[in-house]
Amino acid sequence: MTEVAFKHTIPLQLRFNDVDKFGHINNAVYLTYYDLGKTNYFESVCPNVNWDTDAIVVVHIDVDFMVQIFSTDHVSVQTSVTKIGTKSFELTQRIVDSKTAEVKCLCRSVMVTYDLVKHQTIPMRKEWIDAICAYEGRDLRTQK
Amino acid sequence: MTEVAFKHTIPLQLRFNDVDKFGHINNAVYLTYYDLGKTNYFESVCPNVNWDTDAIVVVHIDVDFMVQIFSTDHVSVQTSVTKIGTKSFELTQRIVDSKTAEVKCLCRSVMVTYDLVKHQTIPMRKEWIDAICAYEGRDLRTQK
Amino acid sequence: MTEVAFKHTIPLQLRFNDVDKFGHINNAVYLTYYDLGKTNYFESVCPNVNWDTDAIVVVHIDVDFMVQIFSTDHVSVQTSVTKIGTKSFELTQRIVDSKTAEVKCLCRSVMVTYDLVKHQTIPMRKEWIDAICAYEGRDLRTQK
Amino acid sequence: MTEVAFKHTIPLQLRFNDVDKFGHINNAVYLTYYDLGKTNYFESVCPNVNWDTDAIVVVHIDVDFMVQIFSTDHVSVQTSVTKIGTKSFELTQRIVDSKTAEVKCLCRSVMVTYDLVKHQTIPMRKEWIDAICAYEGRDLRTQK
Repeated sequence: MTEVAFKHTIPLQLRFNDVDKFGHINNAVYLTYYDLGKTNYFESVCPNVNWDTDAIVVVHIDVDFMVQIFSTDHVSVQTSVTKIGTKSFELTQRIVDSKTAEVKCLCRSVMVTYDLVKHQTIPMRKEWIDAICAYEGRDLRTQK
Repeated sequence: MTEVAFKHTIPLQLRFNDVDKFGHINNAVYLTYYDLGKTNYFESVCPNVNWDTDAIVVVHIDVDFMVQIFSTDHVSVQTSVTKIGTKSFELTQRIVDSKTAEVKCLCRSVMVTYDLVKHQTIPMRKEWIDAICAYEGRDLRTQK
Repeated sequence: MTEVAFKHTIPLQLRFNDVDKFGHINNAVYLTYYDLGKTNYFESVCPNVNWDTDAIVVVHIDVDFMVQIFSTDHVSVQTSVTKIGTKSFELTQRIVDSKTAEVKCLCRSVMVTYDLVKHQTIPMRKEWIDAICAYEGRDLRTQK
Repeated sequence: MTEVAFKHTIPLQLRFNDVDKFGHINNAVYLTYYDLGKTNYFESVCPNVNWDTDAIVVVHIDVDFMVQIFSTDHVSVQTSVTKIGTKSFELTQRIVDSKTAEVKCLCRSVMVTYDLVKHQTIPMRKEWIDAICAYEGRDLRTQK
């Protein structure tokens, strides 16, 4: 993977039952952290985001659980859009120790924008693409 | 992927809040379905499973979300161990429509068995390997 | 409390992470069991239930956690409408051992029917009231 | 209820799937907020809290859902111990708007301290009682 420069980071507030019987954060809960990172990213970076009409839907994820996370850890989720295709886009996210920056988990997801009324995938809006490329500081489109 | 013959299937009981704002089952919730499938698989297939001392920990997952799942759907989770290495093993799982068998989601995970007392990964117990290979009807070990 | 004759019972499928660090089902998870019981009750008993337009919203709950539930237990949720007022109705629910019928938890909730479009509480539809009273075998209306 | 002066407040980080199909925070999720408030309270106020050996277990809750919470709201959870008996103690908690202080939800819970090894309720440790009474600024014991 090309080195990703994460500009978007938010600290996570862990909840008591995020921990499972094995004493560490349950693997399913990581995806709620990634959801939190990505919705916050879009709300911060893109204009006029409205989750009642704009949906971004996960079609593929690929997650490396590198270091277990415990309830006493202080961790943050980092999010970057790393590729924008004509019909889908790629998100790279990490969970890192808030102090040491140790990478606990790495996630790549392929997502689509989705029309909740017509129930079909739609291309990402141009204004979002522009805003994201400006935020990330590079042209992320795979086709120009 | 070699065709997997799934022998282990359990119907899923969906919960009201499994559905997110986009009206479909939230991506993080799928992993709780896969957790349910895998813990049930080990309890059914392997002798003397005790989650207080035996942990199986996810180190990698790779998930294809193929068809959205809605709260009115009837779905089942299918689980198969598809490879057993010296330090890790591979699980292949699917969520399928309980009637039509349409595949909604496919998940491959790499897992390790873990000693909760010593806090280190350990090889899978021989009696578990034997029981799993017998159940699946083939030798799944990558090294013999 | 007057003795309630529960006619509606469904077995619960526990999930791996329903259990918290204390080794028992987490208190918040009980409410997801009660949600499951109540949505299933309305779908079974009342005609034309559509959760996209009909909402039933909890305004008060009162829960007695009598016996801890563990992941190896087999439990069911029982649901009964026990009172129907002009603006709200009361639900009584229990979680019981599926075999011994031991009562693990008792919940009373006050609920309102809610119009999701107009964002206001509305009286329960007459056809629902009739169906519920017929199902429970008695007139549950506090005002006649 | 006697007026409670809440000294312990923490802002809540809402997650994407805290919202249910009805567009507001799901009732079960409120209890995870209260769990977060209470574990944080004990860790902050009491000496030597260790959730591996010290459990605090809910035996009764009573919740008033006064104003719906939406995903765009900024809310905080407030926690106060309001009574300490010989075998149980009472917690009063609220969820409030972080800016306007509007009370969205009120929860009273009766809890017990529990020995996770011996599997039995135990009296609250004297050092915890002293620390809590000092923190709350009054003697909360029902028997002296």
